[in-house]
Amino acid sequence: MSDNASMVRRVSAARLQAFIERVCREVGIPADDAAVIGELMTRADLNGSDGHGVFRLPQYVRRIQAGAVNVRPAIRIVAEAPAMALVDGDNGMGHLVMRFAAETAIRKAKSAGVAWVGVRWSNHAGPAALYASMPLAHDMIGLYLAVGNANHLPAWGGLDMLLSTNPIAVAIPALEEMPVVLDMATTVAAYGKVKTKAQRGETMPEGWMIDRTGRPLTDPKRAGEGFLLPIGGYKGYGLALVFGLLAGTLNGAAMGRDVVDFNNDDTTPTNTGHAIVAIDAKAFGDVIAFKRRVDALVRDLRASERLPGVDAIRIPGEGSQRAREERLRAGIPVPPALRSALDALASKLRVEPLG
Amino acid sequence: MSDNASMVRRVSAARLQAFIERVCREVGIPADDAAVIGELMTRADLNGSDGHGVFRLPQYVRRIQAGAVNVRPAIRIVAEAPAMALVDGDNGMGHLVMRFAAETAIRKAKSAGVAWVGVRWSNHAGPAALYASMPLAHDMIGLYLAVGNANHLPAWGGLDMLLSTNPIAVAIPALEEMPVVLDMATTVAAYGKVKTKAQRGETMPEGWMIDRTGRPLTDPKRAGEGFLLPIGGYKGYGLALVFGLLAGTLNGAAMGRDVVDFNNDDTTPTNTGHAIVAIDAKAFGDVIAFKRRVDALVRDLRASERLPGVDAIRIPGEGSQRAREERLRAGIPVPPALRSALDALASKLRVEPLG
Repeated sequence: MSDNASMVRRVSAARLQAFIERVCREVGIPADDAAVIGELMTRADLNGSDGHGVFRLPQYVRRIQAGAVNVRPAIRIVAEAPAMALVDGDNGMGHLVMRFAAETAIRKAKSAGVAWVGVRWSNHAGPAALYASMPLAHDMIGLYLAVGNANHLPAWGGLDMLLSTNPIAVAIPALEEMPVVLDMATTVAAYGKVKTKAQRGETMPEGWMIDRTGRPLTDPKRAGEGFLLPIGGYKGYGLALVFGLLAGTLNGAAMGRDVVDFNNDDTTPTNTGHAIVAIDAKAFGDVIAFKRRVDALVRDLRASERLPGVDAIRIPGEGSQRAREERLRAGIPVPPALRSALDALASKLRVEPLG
Repeated sequence: MSDNASMVRRVSAARLQAFIERVCREVGIPADDAAVIGELMTRADLNGSDGHGVFRLPQYVRRIQAGAVNVRPAIRIVAEAPAMALVDGDNGMGHLVMRFAAETAIRKAKSAGVAWVGVRWSNHAGPAALYASMPLAHDMIGLYLAVGNANHLPAWGGLDMLLSTNPIAVAIPALEEMPVVLDMATTVAAYGKVKTKAQRGETMPEGWMIDRTGRPLTDPKRAGEGFLLPIGGYKGYGLALVFGLLAGTLNGAAMGRDVVDFNNDDTTPTNTGHAIVAIDAKAFGDVIAFKRRVDALVRDLRASERLPGVDAIRIPGEGSQRAREERLRAGIPVPPALRSALDALASKLRVEPLG
């Protein structure tokens, strides 16, 4: 199962997107919605979020076919005020629900200066940065929070896995520099990284997981016997908790014991919660001046003297941007295991394979 | 300089507050403003934020007397929209500026559902939780970000200290349980903790600081030769960066190279930036139902099975609440070194000492 680089074929974004659309339509998603999902999932792969793009497609299909996801949702606002809305996703695909939520936040921020949109009855929506970045085109800052779809994190000092890796993403526009786009889980490693280590037969560094006695757990095949560690110990626990309260509990979405482990359950709706905030930079003053200040800061950071052995200072979002440029040019890598899974999916659904 | 417990006398909150007010009035702060500062600084001490209450008073006075802080500021809104405001603190005491900003956010959130208030030309305002907690009394969630007043953090992999420990605080109301109040720096340890270790002659655990070669730095007396480590490595660097962009750069406040080290500079205005967000829980639905969900989550976490050796699961804000209850009853501890500093301050200003 090793991802031997020479075996990793590449597909163009257009071909990948068309494949995702075919699959989505085949399982009953209307064509317009399938196009949105294809575009957003492909954008995730282009941006290097390998665990959050087409990699998830077989799982999405399993859950749709088991009736856990509504392919024809009536996504709607169920509560609103000038600077907020609560969106009920009607158990639709998370990409559709979150696009609606982000567009709602952007629209409201245009008149209110800032808008906060909470979401319930959504589903896994791919990488957090996708949605935090949507306000950028409007000279707005985006901030996104979510409740993860599987609990791998206990309270600090606890053993019961009541929390997920609840991520935060923040996207801030610059002028000549790329936008600053932070996208991070509140655990040292996201669970997807553990699964990748297991798949590759590698061990995990100490600090990713501990077992139920508190000892470091480094064998990813034993991941089920332990749990993820939050960043900064009790601090990361606190972040996972408050992000979950904001994205989940406030919106009436699943949090804590109500979170459905969507990796091990194909039939139960997840009631996934998210929150997206759009902040209109224009409301705070001159946008160009603001963006110039972001440029200046980014350049100061990048020009910093470095620790021995460090080849470059990274700005959050740079890695994604580099991946995007490279993959737009050379195609999106599809490792053999993923290709097999997608071929099997195509065969089962009798749609044209990725090719 | 050891804080021998038997030598730590205690003072009542009322006496401490009156002392802070006397000092503030003596250096030219109007009586009403001095009362606000006295109340907020005392609240910090009651809540156990020992490095952010009266401990800071001698430094505040030094900076006021050196002309770095405006004792009669015209704090005002310089830009606004229905759900946001930008506040210019006119270089006044941070407590006054942030109280104004929090009240503005609460007022606007009452009509807009959510409001975001940015702040520039402020100063050190004490603990982040003070301001994040202000919306709680209005059944609102509070979220606070700030740019710290000294850069002790480089970019990840860098050596130039361009970032501060930029904190986040989030306060979420519960029904029968105490509110969840997270207040944390984005570094493993706040710089104040390093100073406390140095004062006590103790060594720091590995993981707090590294030196300029990347090796662990555990002697707090050598703190000047190294820098703080962010939580979760590059993740904490990312958080410090985006929180600083939101609290500082967006508002035209100091960030990056413009941050003034107020521990080593008594004369330069800091142009401190903050951001406070108020989120009206009522806008999202039934408030009682929401608070019950928070209660249920808190109880699930607290009832969790525990790691060996862990005596209790802590909820963010519990420690402060316990300190507050104990200190309201028994008084606020004033260690000998702090008492000497406050006595010297009283003597210099010719005001009645703390007693």
